[in-house]
Amino acid sequence: MPGDSFGHSFRITTAGESHGPGNVVIIDGCPPGVPLAEADLAEDLARRRPGQSRIVTPRNEPDAPEILSGVFEGKTTGTSIAILIRNVDQRGRDYADIRDKYRPGHADYTYDAKYGRRDYRGGGRASARETSVRVAAGVVAKRIIASAFGGRVVGYVRQVGDVVAEVPDPAAVTQQQVETLPDGAPNIVRCPDPARAAEMVASIEEAREARDSIGGVAEIVAVGVPAGLGEPVFDKLKADLAKALFSLPAVLGVEYGVGFGCARLRGSENNDLFRPADADGAAGARVVTGTNRHGGMLGGISSGMPIVLRAAVKPTSSLPREQATVTTAGEPTTIRTRGRHDPCLLPRFVPMAEAMVAIVLADHWLRWRASSGSGAG
Amino acid sequence: MPGDSFGHSFRITTAGESHGPGNVVIIDGCPPGVPLAEADLAEDLARRRPGQSRIVTPRNEPDAPEILSGVFEGKTTGTSIAILIRNVDQRGRDYADIRDKYRPGHADYTYDAKYGRRDYRGGGRASARETSVRVAAGVVAKRIIASAFGGRVVGYVRQVGDVVAEVPDPAAVTQQQVETLPDGAPNIVRCPDPARAAEMVASIEEAREARDSIGGVAEIVAVGVPAGLGEPVFDKLKADLAKALFSLPAVLGVEYGVGFGCARLRGSENNDLFRPADADGAAGARVVTGTNRHGGMLGGISSGMPIVLRAAVKPTSSLPREQATVTTAGEPTTIRTRGRHDPCLLPRFVPMAEAMVAIVLADHWLRWRASSGSGAG
Amino acid sequence: MPGDSFGHSFRITTAGESHGPGNVVIIDGCPPGVPLAEADLAEDLARRRPGQSRIVTPRNEPDAPEILSGVFEGKTTGTSIAILIRNVDQRGRDYADIRDKYRPGHADYTYDAKYGRRDYRGGGRASARETSVRVAAGVVAKRIIASAFGGRVVGYVRQVGDVVAEVPDPAAVTQQQVETLPDGAPNIVRCPDPARAAEMVASIEEAREARDSIGGVAEIVAVGVPAGLGEPVFDKLKADLAKALFSLPAVLGVEYGVGFGCARLRGSENNDLFRPADADGAAGARVVTGTNRHGGMLGGISSGMPIVLRAAVKPTSSLPREQATVTTAGEPTTIRTRGRHDPCLLPRFVPMAEAMVAIVLADHWLRWRASSGSGAG
Amino acid sequence: MPGDSFGHSFRITTAGESHGPGNVVIIDGCPPGVPLAEADLAEDLARRRPGQSRIVTPRNEPDAPEILSGVFEGKTTGTSIAILIRNVDQRGRDYADIRDKYRPGHADYTYDAKYGRRDYRGGGRASARETSVRVAAGVVAKRIIASAFGGRVVGYVRQVGDVVAEVPDPAAVTQQQVETLPDGAPNIVRCPDPARAAEMVASIEEAREARDSIGGVAEIVAVGVPAGLGEPVFDKLKADLAKALFSLPAVLGVEYGVGFGCARLRGSENNDLFRPADADGAAGARVVTGTNRHGGMLGGISSGMPIVLRAAVKPTSSLPREQATVTTAGEPTTIRTRGRHDPCLLPRFVPMAEAMVAIVLADHWLRWRASSGSGAG
Repeated sequence: MPGDSFGHSFRITTAGESHGPGNVVIIDGCPPGVPLAEADLAEDLARRRPGQSRIVTPRNEPDAPEILSGVFEGKTTGTSIAILIRNVDQRGRDYADIRDKYRPGHADYTYDAKYGRRDYRGGGRASARETSVRVAAGVVAKRIIASAFGGRVVGYVRQVGDVVAEVPDPAAVTQQQVETLPDGAPNIVRCPDPARAAEMVASIEEAREARDSIGGVAEIVAVGVPAGLGEPVFDKLKADLAKALFSLPAVLGVEYGVGFGCARLRGSENNDLFRPADADGAAGARVVTGTNRHGGMLGGISSGMPIVLRAAVKPTSSLPREQATVTTAGEPTTIRTRGRHDPCLLPRFVPMAEAMVAIVLADHWLRWRASSGSGAG
Repeated sequence: MPGDSFGHSFRITTAGESHGPGNVVIIDGCPPGVPLAEADLAEDLARRRPGQSRIVTPRNEPDAPEILSGVFEGKTTGTSIAILIRNVDQRGRDYADIRDKYRPGHADYTYDAKYGRRDYRGGGRASARETSVRVAAGVVAKRIIASAFGGRVVGYVRQVGDVVAEVPDPAAVTQQQVETLPDGAPNIVRCPDPARAAEMVASIEEAREARDSIGGVAEIVAVGVPAGLGEPVFDKLKADLAKALFSLPAVLGVEYGVGFGCARLRGSENNDLFRPADADGAAGARVVTGTNRHGGMLGGISSGMPIVLRAAVKPTSSLPREQATVTTAGEPTTIRTRGRHDPCLLPRFVPMAEAMVAIVLADHWLRWRASSGSGAG
Repeated sequence: MPGDSFGHSFRITTAGESHGPGNVVIIDGCPPGVPLAEADLAEDLARRRPGQSRIVTPRNEPDAPEILSGVFEGKTTGTSIAILIRNVDQRGRDYADIRDKYRPGHADYTYDAKYGRRDYRGGGRASARETSVRVAAGVVAKRIIASAFGGRVVGYVRQVGDVVAEVPDPAAVTQQQVETLPDGAPNIVRCPDPARAAEMVASIEEAREARDSIGGVAEIVAVGVPAGLGEPVFDKLKADLAKALFSLPAVLGVEYGVGFGCARLRGSENNDLFRPADADGAAGARVVTGTNRHGGMLGGISSGMPIVLRAAVKPTSSLPREQATVTTAGEPTTIRTRGRHDPCLLPRFVPMAEAMVAIVLADHWLRWRASSGSGAG
Repeated sequence: MPGDSFGHSFRITTAGESHGPGNVVIIDGCPPGVPLAEADLAEDLARRRPGQSRIVTPRNEPDAPEILSGVFEGKTTGTSIAILIRNVDQRGRDYADIRDKYRPGHADYTYDAKYGRRDYRGGGRASARETSVRVAAGVVAKRIIASAFGGRVVGYVRQVGDVVAEVPDPAAVTQQQVETLPDGAPNIVRCPDPARAAEMVASIEEAREARDSIGGVAEIVAVGVPAGLGEPVFDKLKADLAKALFSLPAVLGVEYGVGFGCARLRGSENNDLFRPADADGAAGARVVTGTNRHGGMLGGISSGMPIVLRAAVKPTSSLPREQATVTTAGEPTTIRTRGRHDPCLLPRFVPMAEAMVAIVLADHWLRWRASSGSGAG
């Protein structure tokens, strides 16, 4: 398992690059009986897809999935599920300009340092194309947690550049709000604060016009997660979620609840105090906290409160302007990326992040089924 | 491996609780021939130890390690190394006040939710005592990376409350600066900015006098790491480091390089441009970046630049004051923790974080030996 | 990893069933630079293929592989390799006769007991079709060990029914002998003893004519393996090889060297005595044993002597005759399998077993690169 | 996990050597609430202990276990359990005679080839002392399977040299029969056929008097295992059980049910036909087989019939007589082992093998809890 597998009891393994025949995921550990068809994968794949709006890359990839195994008569069999998404938009073009140069901010140099060779036509495994099959696997994970405990994962864009959305109650955000503006138009930036959404779109367009790109922050919320998921030491739920998020491209930070803000707080300000749950306690919990600075996990184990996390996503490294760099031989040069790149990664990052969070929750729920509960019953 | 193991080719597995006989780690995958004796573990264990200064908990644990296996004639044999650290300071006392109440901010409630039972005398596996054996394992990891590539991991306190240290060049900080003030006195807060160090100590003492606690940020730097460590997809170096950090108690955020600051940057501001290395390039690198906003990893693989990460650590949850909570039966009550707790976790967090970073680097170096380099040579 | 992955540093994960779209393997951990093309997979796939001779099933599967990832410009990139083999010969037919009955000796009942549902059209994951992609992965493994240490894996049929081949020196058997008879005709039973090969073919044909099937023993030899591969305790080379062999369908026994015969021996008869290697010592070994009752591993670690193992393969369970069984509702009934089945599994078992042995050796060689050798060099 | 861990959801990791301070196991994944105290470990440890009878090594090791963690108020907590067994009988003696010579049949040479260095005072990790903590972990596993499904594992000696026990119904053998002869005397050879037991003891004593040793076969039976345990492909129950058995020292063969005998059978002779279970079907099964040539697993998944396996154990390699060998420098020499060794490994092998079988069953039961059953319920 040199790095292409993730998870323990619900486990995904991926293969594929940006410029090869396609990407494939094998999902291992999905219980039998989960309803699944190729059409079920369409919605989240469309949310991740290039070409979906005017603020993402204009590349055109249909991202049509083929389920190769693990489903019979419309339901999972309990054995491994393989999903293949073929690459389509691999324009034949002259790669001479990038073949022998290291693109700043990309993995070209580090791949060469690691492997001694690489497919110079694109990002290879480091490309966001690899995430297409993660999103497909995330659909399976979302179904498992929805069925098992009514769990729901909603992600959205919290910040783009200096524009920060107001989100009074992260746990109340709906996918409807994330995908559609109040006037019914598509919420192409996926920010549930409509005023800030418009500002974010303007910022992204401004960056693109300046032949530049812009960073941001995504916030992901999981609601309905019962208390008790996560392992006590290394496989803390917060540790596995962080690994999941940092395994996505371009992430430079992850925080939970009050996050880095905790550094300025005193314990008496930071502690979330327990109180009895009302009749409508989260997931039938007996105990809740009145506030949620802890972000839904204590000791690395879910507390029954909403899990709230944020990921900082850097501005796209590929820029349609000259940047200084070196050749693969180490000589100074300049490079201007001609690919069709996202001016801001955040809108397409949201479904990727949701998928990874759902995969971690499905895994830890299956792990909980194995090792917890009554001693040997 | 339900959560008590960490790593792949260099792997640690721990057991032990705060109030049991002791904690033990089994280190698997350490190459043969690494010089190791119990005395070698003393320095880092002393840096993590309770009772080391006036700003940490006054509990008194000698933390004397016993190497049970894997070392012969002063060197590792290549087989599994077990290290035992017995608990000593388990004062017999009346636990009636905490037995039936959930301490705010602690894992009492979540452990009960997960397991249905727990050792109510302390934090069990969630206690920082478990980290003692991680620090011991970290010493082994530090030796491996030092010998293999001259790697060095230095951690320090960057922020306590509102006090933020000036650290012009993280890669230049020495352990000497972290441990000793310019006047030769112990740097008990482990901040390499002497002026801020004094302010931090004052903040911590003020918090303690207010029967409160205070949060902060630690910064960890790994220098000398060659380009090419890390796996391309899920086991990105940044992903494994983040998991390692979040597996420590009380961490609410992790970021690399410019971190969350990237959200406000444009690509042209954020990209670190490659240039030829000078004769003294890091670890013999041909290529370097003039700036290090990326924090030493691109595409999840080390770039040869210093790895710089920060972890946000919440204020200690245990407070010597009344806090509202509930009983294990769900009834409202109050609790006042009488244990001898750290008013600020940061000074003792530093060696724990260094250990985890070193463990990840040793693991990925061994993984690199296995899977990279020449095709089959 | 609930059971569809195998290996540690060289790791394969498979998906696919007998009656779905196809089978796929993801190979993780293959070093960069290994020459690989789809054509390279053809030879071993043809050895495993149905319809290859008159003594195997007449089903017709072309087993044409598609490499989906991990290869660029004719060499592996070091990242995960996916290989897809589509199913072709899935005749539409009436499954009513097997849909509600448990075939004796098959996994129908146990899959139902485990999962509560299954694809009744065939063996699903338990089908030998799953092994097609293992054989493809085995080709990659064979290349690695050949390049790394000149390792070579040769399998053959040692016994069919009462016919036992004479093989004076297992380490001297060549694939040429296994595949081709002295007269140049194909050695369809894959037994290197030509006289016994003819008897085996006769036995198999006799069994088929009797609407029956017949069992046998395969012997697999790995030569050129240097001393030092294998881990000391649970991942002994003999343990991982045994797991690999028992993971193939229909295997009821595995033994090394003198195998079960050791029960009747005294230590003085069984011990293989060390002596200095001649100039042409195996893989440059300093020390060899004059005999090889130990089968090439001591303490679970390769000794430099040829690795010799045998697997007992039961007679095909599917029989074209009435057998008593029960319905899925538990009522007595009879069943007569109409599928086109192998009268003897052994000829097609040979390449499957070779592949699994090669995969284990490639894995342990990469593991050796990681954890052994000089302490930290 | 370079080879010192075993299992997936119920996982053990061991450390320790024959001549170090002691051996330790960390058991990960044991559910909470399993009653456990140090005294519970005594019985099986005594069965494995040196010095237990006149036909085993006279070394004297008390093998007193200390539970270091994971148990509170007499029950497991659900977190990792560490058990330490210190070495006591490490006689100071002159090792000059074995320090520079490779003992035939031992791992001295292969460890040197692998690691380049080793503790020459004994077998290190390859010593049977390592199995003491496996037996302790096996007690925990036995409790889990007993509580979960009434599972019971009974091992015994089936063959020593040419003496083969008659065991008409392996599933009916009781531990009482294995441990005690009909006349109430201890059954020191652990063979449930009293007449053959006496012959076996005579054979062992004869071998010892001839300054030799003798091999044999152990048979292990697991009854009460419900249908449905095991994973479909690589982690077949038969594959994991075989790996477990081959991870023990001195095992040269493993077979299930009819085992190697299947090679001589036709399908019509070998198939076990299904029939409706009587009211007293095994573990409440609806379906049983009238015969059990398949050994309790079909497609690698338990069938509900008794699991029956046999392991071939070679004669002890250490002999109190001169044997030819080489020095570590590769020069011819002779060696005469002066250690106090077992003339036959089988009596002490039985509890080791039972432990490993129980560990695999506990692991697969927990895995079944995670991944099987209703889709997401």
